[in-house]
Amino acid sequence: MANAATIPAEQTATLAPKAAPHAAILGVGGYAGGELARILLHHSKFASTTPTFFGRPDESKSGTLTFLEDLHPQLATAGHRRVHQILPFSWERAASSGVEILFLATPHEQSREWVPTAIAHNIKVIDLSGAWRLQHDANRAVYKLQDANPTHAAQLQIEAVYGSPELHRDAIRHARLVANPGCYATSVILALAPLIEAGIVDVDHGIISDSKSGVSGAGKAPTANTHFMHAADNLSAYAVFGHRHIGEMLEQLNLTTEQIQFTPHLLPIPRGIMSSIYLRLKQKTDAATISKVFESFYSNSPLVRLHHTPHLPEIQHIVRTNFCDLGFALAPDGRRLLVVSCLDNLLKGAAGQAVQNMNLMCGWNEEEGLL
Amino acid sequence: MANAATIPAEQTATLAPKAAPHAAILGVGGYAGGELARILLHHSKFASTTPTFFGRPDESKSGTLTFLEDLHPQLATAGHRRVHQILPFSWERAASSGVEILFLATPHEQSREWVPTAIAHNIKVIDLSGAWRLQHDANRAVYKLQDANPTHAAQLQIEAVYGSPELHRDAIRHARLVANPGCYATSVILALAPLIEAGIVDVDHGIISDSKSGVSGAGKAPTANTHFMHAADNLSAYAVFGHRHIGEMLEQLNLTTEQIQFTPHLLPIPRGIMSSIYLRLKQKTDAATISKVFESFYSNSPLVRLHHTPHLPEIQHIVRTNFCDLGFALAPDGRRLLVVSCLDNLLKGAAGQAVQNMNLMCGWNEEEGLL
Amino acid sequence: MANAATIPAEQTATLAPKAAPHAAILGVGGYAGGELARILLHHSKFASTTPTFFGRPDESKSGTLTFLEDLHPQLATAGHRRVHQILPFSWERAASSGVEILFLATPHEQSREWVPTAIAHNIKVIDLSGAWRLQHDANRAVYKLQDANPTHAAQLQIEAVYGSPELHRDAIRHARLVANPGCYATSVILALAPLIEAGIVDVDHGIISDSKSGVSGAGKAPTANTHFMHAADNLSAYAVFGHRHIGEMLEQLNLTTEQIQFTPHLLPIPRGIMSSIYLRLKQKTDAATISKVFESFYSNSPLVRLHHTPHLPEIQHIVRTNFCDLGFALAPDGRRLLVVSCLDNLLKGAAGQAVQNMNLMCGWNEEEGLL
Amino acid sequence: MANAATIPAEQTATLAPKAAPHAAILGVGGYAGGELARILLHHSKFASTTPTFFGRPDESKSGTLTFLEDLHPQLATAGHRRVHQILPFSWERAASSGVEILFLATPHEQSREWVPTAIAHNIKVIDLSGAWRLQHDANRAVYKLQDANPTHAAQLQIEAVYGSPELHRDAIRHARLVANPGCYATSVILALAPLIEAGIVDVDHGIISDSKSGVSGAGKAPTANTHFMHAADNLSAYAVFGHRHIGEMLEQLNLTTEQIQFTPHLLPIPRGIMSSIYLRLKQKTDAATISKVFESFYSNSPLVRLHHTPHLPEIQHIVRTNFCDLGFALAPDGRRLLVVSCLDNLLKGAAGQAVQNMNLMCGWNEEEGLL
Repeated sequence: MANAATIPAEQTATLAPKAAPHAAILGVGGYAGGELARILLHHSKFASTTPTFFGRPDESKSGTLTFLEDLHPQLATAGHRRVHQILPFSWERAASSGVEILFLATPHEQSREWVPTAIAHNIKVIDLSGAWRLQHDANRAVYKLQDANPTHAAQLQIEAVYGSPELHRDAIRHARLVANPGCYATSVILALAPLIEAGIVDVDHGIISDSKSGVSGAGKAPTANTHFMHAADNLSAYAVFGHRHIGEMLEQLNLTTEQIQFTPHLLPIPRGIMSSIYLRLKQKTDAATISKVFESFYSNSPLVRLHHTPHLPEIQHIVRTNFCDLGFALAPDGRRLLVVSCLDNLLKGAAGQAVQNMNLMCGWNEEEGLL
Repeated sequence: MANAATIPAEQTATLAPKAAPHAAILGVGGYAGGELARILLHHSKFASTTPTFFGRPDESKSGTLTFLEDLHPQLATAGHRRVHQILPFSWERAASSGVEILFLATPHEQSREWVPTAIAHNIKVIDLSGAWRLQHDANRAVYKLQDANPTHAAQLQIEAVYGSPELHRDAIRHARLVANPGCYATSVILALAPLIEAGIVDVDHGIISDSKSGVSGAGKAPTANTHFMHAADNLSAYAVFGHRHIGEMLEQLNLTTEQIQFTPHLLPIPRGIMSSIYLRLKQKTDAATISKVFESFYSNSPLVRLHHTPHLPEIQHIVRTNFCDLGFALAPDGRRLLVVSCLDNLLKGAAGQAVQNMNLMCGWNEEEGLL
Repeated sequence: MANAATIPAEQTATLAPKAAPHAAILGVGGYAGGELARILLHHSKFASTTPTFFGRPDESKSGTLTFLEDLHPQLATAGHRRVHQILPFSWERAASSGVEILFLATPHEQSREWVPTAIAHNIKVIDLSGAWRLQHDANRAVYKLQDANPTHAAQLQIEAVYGSPELHRDAIRHARLVANPGCYATSVILALAPLIEAGIVDVDHGIISDSKSGVSGAGKAPTANTHFMHAADNLSAYAVFGHRHIGEMLEQLNLTTEQIQFTPHLLPIPRGIMSSIYLRLKQKTDAATISKVFESFYSNSPLVRLHHTPHLPEIQHIVRTNFCDLGFALAPDGRRLLVVSCLDNLLKGAAGQAVQNMNLMCGWNEEEGLL
Repeated sequence: MANAATIPAEQTATLAPKAAPHAAILGVGGYAGGELARILLHHSKFASTTPTFFGRPDESKSGTLTFLEDLHPQLATAGHRRVHQILPFSWERAASSGVEILFLATPHEQSREWVPTAIAHNIKVIDLSGAWRLQHDANRAVYKLQDANPTHAAQLQIEAVYGSPELHRDAIRHARLVANPGCYATSVILALAPLIEAGIVDVDHGIISDSKSGVSGAGKAPTANTHFMHAADNLSAYAVFGHRHIGEMLEQLNLTTEQIQFTPHLLPIPRGIMSSIYLRLKQKTDAATISKVFESFYSNSPLVRLHHTPHLPEIQHIVRTNFCDLGFALAPDGRRLLVVSCLDNLLKGAAGQAVQNMNLMCGWNEEEGLL
């Protein structure tokens, strides 16, 4: 339903199935970077080829880079506390160590700057930032990105595939550049895509997503908002009518800003997102029909779980999993529909979905290492 | 805007201003009952006349009644740990101790049964349950109430005043029976009443209240849902399209079930409610106009605080206060409005509002003892 | 250092290495049972042989048994929500389905009753309750156990191996009956065993373990103590001088009740235990010596992680892992030692340690499926 | 038992009873400052004389000072959201507005610098920092304080009264400078002072305080440790053998560093401290004797609550109160004693105790405004 970029034939050869590429993570110190490291270290395809862990350039300069286990103590194994060194990043080092696929867990400015260089070095990229997700300049404006070579960047932007496997599975398989979706955006898009594609939503009535996220979504930097005293025992709405994930929803769901309203809230929990999505159907419909729409759309999607009425997803069921859980409740009038969507913002909303994309790019089962 | 019952003249004499009546709380062991006790013990008008604390009959029978400080240790004062005895309830005891005003913090079945007897004993009642809040039998059906004397109960029902001081201040002053509102209902009604009264809401478009409450709202009984392991680090929707507080919203706001949709969620915090309310205005409006509607409606309401754009209420700001905080955000199109309403479910949503009603019935300032 | 029971030769043949036995879990509905199911479903040796899941007899009778995914929704896989049926338990069913190794996640009374029958059916048992952990009648008295055949039970008791792999690795390999340790006991015993074995602790001075546990340690039954409103934002000590895990510490560490004092506290978190253990050394010692004692004792223990001064374990680092993390701080006087011990009460303190024991009984690496 | 400084007669005249002095708070933006403001705004003696609120000089310079209600939204009253202006501080302004008593909620360096000036301006001071609490240079060294006029500072230091009303009630009444105790120190000192004064503690055996505090104790500055993701669902020990509150315990309890060991832990809750204190009695004692020691010591202390065996204090019972709750458990041997002490670190551990001191300095009941 969304823009699967046209891909020149010479770029589309997938990596040979079953052969693990040399993967690297750039920005392994953050929450998503740590989850990426954890998943890859337990991924069956990487049993013999450990990924390379790079720090961000600013971290490299300050000389604070040490070992993965120092930054993420829960990853330590017995006896040998410090196994995985974090290397200062340089393109020379990346090239000389033969990196073939690079996860960017970096701020969007850095991702925007580096992706062209990576592609020039023949390195495929899965970018976890917002830098390459949006095709329309107007939507991307919120990120205030600057390109050294605007023409080349524009070409790459067109080539970039929005990394939602449930929507763009084939394009991802052949992509050189995957823009991994935002966490909130994933929760909303996966809930709405089947219904909108089925043509049963009265989009002009207006869709509302009242979304709530745990604190890890706000990142690792200590701020007034991430202070325990602000976040604990609290709930607050923020970025009302102005959150930067809205652009992804508009582009992926073909909606206008008047057709969808998105309100994020900060939950007093470490991780997990719930989106309570309200919409009106074009005509009176029964629950079985709705179920069928979801089941049909996700019949080949191992990382989406459908709940059956009257069961609705809860955050506890998806925390520390790579699933997106979906459920719904239909009003007695058969017109007003509530869809509830839950996922772990660091996994299906970030690192897990990134690995799912890597699996596709490598010709593996998309759920490899994610169950 | 709602049904202020016609009150026969002979029933309307308020208690003499400034004279503290003999008050009693029945059901002091629960969360709301404990908050009621705390407020009254610190209420300036009760500095010399301590209220009487009654246990519920089932508690009285089991002989487990002891002292207020045993049930609510945070209420203990130094040295004398056990000061306030909890008495087994009987009408004889209530009459002989001269109770004039009775708070019922009891299950709705009990409240329904006892109110007629209390009124017959010339005791005014503030009932915290749902037993007497609803005028329409269809709305009240969800409580499955049974009346020994249906005719008399129907008369009392008509006489009962819905205890929302901001809506029914005058009727409450003269009431014998005040039905204290539900916590969720209060948060929604106070957010919507000014806008609906002003006639600017497109109610037929449909109003949505996505509401979230702390666990104390689920009561003191240990259940699978109130178990720490279910509630902590979680968020779950429940009673979708079927919560029993909806009837109050319909009656107080003059809405139909198709015009408002209410989804409660269980928050992993002890107390506090936030309702994120979505509605459409009949025509393009600016924020200043919305502000004026709220300010005008609440100009004489000391327990409602209005936030000014872009500030929105947060749960932390109202926990352990008797305020309802209101704020809003208007879409650039001037049509789509988000109203955020926060209150403490045990205070403005229960015990605090009950005391506010008592203050009115006694001819005192409504905020007495509540700031 | 503790009582490795003498084991008759004919009982000691281990299961053939690499062959996965038919395993069953009895009591899969509780927290530990759910974790056991999760671990076994992802255990490489059980890739082709799914364990059997039995409900407890009382659950079987009530007919409420259904599917694993209903009780533990986070275990559901995509598409097929209900895969693993929970069977009503009977010895006939266990025998006919060829169960060779049985995990008992049952109350201690049931475990005491059933173990003799299981052994008679030639089924090896790993019992997660306290029923078989204690060799001394005086210590076991707290459980108020009753035996149908006291003589036989006494023999089995002597044969039972205390399932602490780091202390009794060899005995576990050949055991028919493993008594899986208590969660608190594990945290204290693993912290103290190396130091006491090294003979450097002044045990007569008195050892103090100030321990804190998350709420899952209190079990799944809703009670006043596990109610969110009691547990959240709180800390409380309980069972002071009387917790039933003390007996395990006494027996495994060869201490008297005067030599160790244990105070458990309830933490407002779902899972995790920290024990802060205070002791005095016989003579002035340096930190390097202490480190060496721990390193030497745990050199072959893949599921114990040692922290190096000044780093101390934190609960966050061990939650949802199968590790016990140990660290220490030595006073400037070289005599007063603080040892900090952290583990996940449901994993290394229950289900994880149970699987570690199973791995040993099957001749596999003890960390198989636990990293 | 501790050093009640000798006070020259001409300095000891208390303020005339019942007359409210002009009070000011310097540093009203922090947690303790906000609690101070809240208490004084509701204090009956200040019903007609509002205190003055000063920002810290660095806040004044940056021009960010505005209104109390902006910094602490829960303090707002209806209608008038912004009532209490925060003034930039200067001695001229303080003098011209006639400040008689000044609360310093400032970093210790600032408190050390300003107290001499305040005293020179004839302003009495209650300092909430650690700057003036310690008489011994060696204990105070941890704060790295520098004095412009060391001789004068030394004189003031001798004059400073340690603001523990239960220990130094009379000295506080006549003090010009009260050094308000540390939160942890208060919890430990109030638990131990009665027992040590009674001479029944075997102090040479060693006393251990295993203490746990909520996150507000770490202050308002966002740091890696106060980030929600670090503090939530966690427990960690810190500053082992080196916390700066130890000096207060040593001086107030006349102990040596070998006689007491103090381990603070960070609890995943906003506020509240529990100290679990382990000690040995000189000889076998019964519980009634212990009770009598506490009751006798605190017979005139309205802000200490004693729990009777087997009840122990819990954090929930003291949060948002100005009490210190004490309870104990005695081992069957009659020698090993556990004392549990709980208080709210921002109230009895900071702002509440500061107001208690002010009450004494003003000749009022010490609990005025604190119940």
